[in-house]
Amino acid sequence: MPPIKPRIAIDAMGGDFGPEVIVPGAIEAARKKDLGLILVGDENKIQSALSDKKNKDIDLEIVHASEVVEMSDKPSDIMRRKKDSSIQVAFRLAREGKAQGIVSAGNSGATLACGMFILGRIKGIERPALASILPSEKGPVILIDVGANVECKPYHLVQFGLMAEVFARSVLHVKKPKVGVLTIGEEEGKGNNLVKETIKLFKMSSMNFIGNIEGRDFFTGKADVIVCDGFVGNVSLKLMEGLATSLNKILKEEVKKSWLARIGFLMGIRALKRFGRRIDYAEYGGAPLLGLNGIGIVCHGSSNSKAINNAVIMAGEFIRNGANKLLIDGLGANKEIQLFSKKALPRN
Amino acid sequence: MPPIKPRIAIDAMGGDFGPEVIVPGAIEAARKKDLGLILVGDENKIQSALSDKKNKDIDLEIVHASEVVEMSDKPSDIMRRKKDSSIQVAFRLAREGKAQGIVSAGNSGATLACGMFILGRIKGIERPALASILPSEKGPVILIDVGANVECKPYHLVQFGLMAEVFARSVLHVKKPKVGVLTIGEEEGKGNNLVKETIKLFKMSSMNFIGNIEGRDFFTGKADVIVCDGFVGNVSLKLMEGLATSLNKILKEEVKKSWLARIGFLMGIRALKRFGRRIDYAEYGGAPLLGLNGIGIVCHGSSNSKAINNAVIMAGEFIRNGANKLLIDGLGANKEIQLFSKKALPRN
Repeated sequence: MPPIKPRIAIDAMGGDFGPEVIVPGAIEAARKKDLGLILVGDENKIQSALSDKKNKDIDLEIVHASEVVEMSDKPSDIMRRKKDSSIQVAFRLAREGKAQGIVSAGNSGATLACGMFILGRIKGIERPALASILPSEKGPVILIDVGANVECKPYHLVQFGLMAEVFARSVLHVKKPKVGVLTIGEEEGKGNNLVKETIKLFKMSSMNFIGNIEGRDFFTGKADVIVCDGFVGNVSLKLMEGLATSLNKILKEEVKKSWLARIGFLMGIRALKRFGRRIDYAEYGGAPLLGLNGIGIVCHGSSNSKAINNAVIMAGEFIRNGANKLLIDGLGANKEIQLFSKKALPRN
Repeated sequence: MPPIKPRIAIDAMGGDFGPEVIVPGAIEAARKKDLGLILVGDENKIQSALSDKKNKDIDLEIVHASEVVEMSDKPSDIMRRKKDSSIQVAFRLAREGKAQGIVSAGNSGATLACGMFILGRIKGIERPALASILPSEKGPVILIDVGANVECKPYHLVQFGLMAEVFARSVLHVKKPKVGVLTIGEEEGKGNNLVKETIKLFKMSSMNFIGNIEGRDFFTGKADVIVCDGFVGNVSLKLMEGLATSLNKILKEEVKKSWLARIGFLMGIRALKRFGRRIDYAEYGGAPLLGLNGIGIVCHGSSNSKAINNAVIMAGEFIRNGANKLLIDGLGANKEIQLFSKKALPRN
């Protein structure tokens, strides 16, 4: 049964801007959606970020953590070397049941490593993966993996597909989600070796597999789930954000060149603001780490308060929906997760 | 010495739309820039595409080719199986000196294979690569490779960098081009194994290597040359086009929602058209295949007449500039091309 009031552990030290940006974003979300917060990190810094915020109405706790994981830290070292890091402490609070989910804007490799070690994986899952939920012309599209696993085997990619398919069905309520593999042409046989081998496995699965997806298909809603390795997915995600930002800038530049356009721009300002919102990555907040035994939302290092706010809201919704249980049940009912594994496919 | 009037062999059968789209695009370019054309492909179809065009003023020739390379054909089979395909005939015209460059919107893998076999490679180059010239906030940026080589070794990527660096310097007149490797984080050590090994080699080179480039840096002009394998490059390129198209659509949708915005839109229509032009891939036409012993421009399968027009103009400019000789001379002067090779680095 989902808890009455979700409690979320926030890694207050993660990201490029630390508590000054993370704390206000989390508090805003907690107020709007009636969530409990545990802010984890350097107590003094958190207190100072809290000082000018009205937060008497928020169910709030601070848990001190003396260490911070840097973006340059190796994920494989973190568990051993930084036992009192904010990200480890946050995951331990989740393991102990003091929180039902965590949000971090820190090093995503380290977040994955700590999450796997502390919360464990869903049975049968070899590697959890980061799923980004993107807007498209037809509705949300899940891009998986966007950065947790940079070297993948074909069966990893099939498992990412299975997880995202269940997630799309049970959490996002997409009927019979269409699953595709990201590659470089529409025709069969286009792609690198990883993609070609992966497609063979997808065809053996029971998923509603629609084949090749190209970069241009991201926004048309051709697929509900797009599968790729974490290197390609992360490059793609950052490319989209960069392009959206630059296009906004170019549009403004062009408008500034003429008085007529400036006046027109003022008349259309609301439409342009809606446009801006639809393409702003901060609106989508964070990416869930699918495959963990629990709810972990990873945000960009460069997240602003709005992005953190939306990520905390997402964590709250997932806790209220029982998203993790839905995922565990859905995967458990699908015996294929055992077939697409290292044990069953040692050479793939 | 560059020829007085460049002559370009056009693969009239390539692309999704064939002669009906390619012929008008090529003719428009030839008229604007005083270029000679050899249209290669099914003579009847070319004649019918020509019938309603005034082209008496164009220096034009048709060379019949009885076969067409399909998008689904395997590049490795083409040389042997389709000897009379339009793309092979076009490259042979270039080898025989009847044309000084070719343009194709066909299967890019097949174009590369035929180009390598018929024209050969620049000395020292292991694999030619497709270089896309993209707009950025500061000027053109070369993304290399965008689809010719989907499986790469680290030394291939360094060679791509060397070619694009010379190209940026001698053809695009960029002083001391900044070269970066596309990866998934700013910090050293972020990336997959290919990228990590590649970066080690780049550091040993004499290039102005600026390190990691992320997807979000494409448009800021942080680097003049961005190096990646052809899989990642092709996904990225198609993603940019798809996003630009979708954003244009979303903007129009938002504007249509209110009368005020519609009137404003009309007042700003010129600014919006300039915006559209700046983000339209067709403005940039084609991608040069760097490393061939000659000038080959590859266009998208989905190219419209405008894209073909711009690709033919690009070919004409490169012929007039002597771009290929500039590349050969530049690479010849740089002994590093021998150091970053299969022979020198058998294990990379």
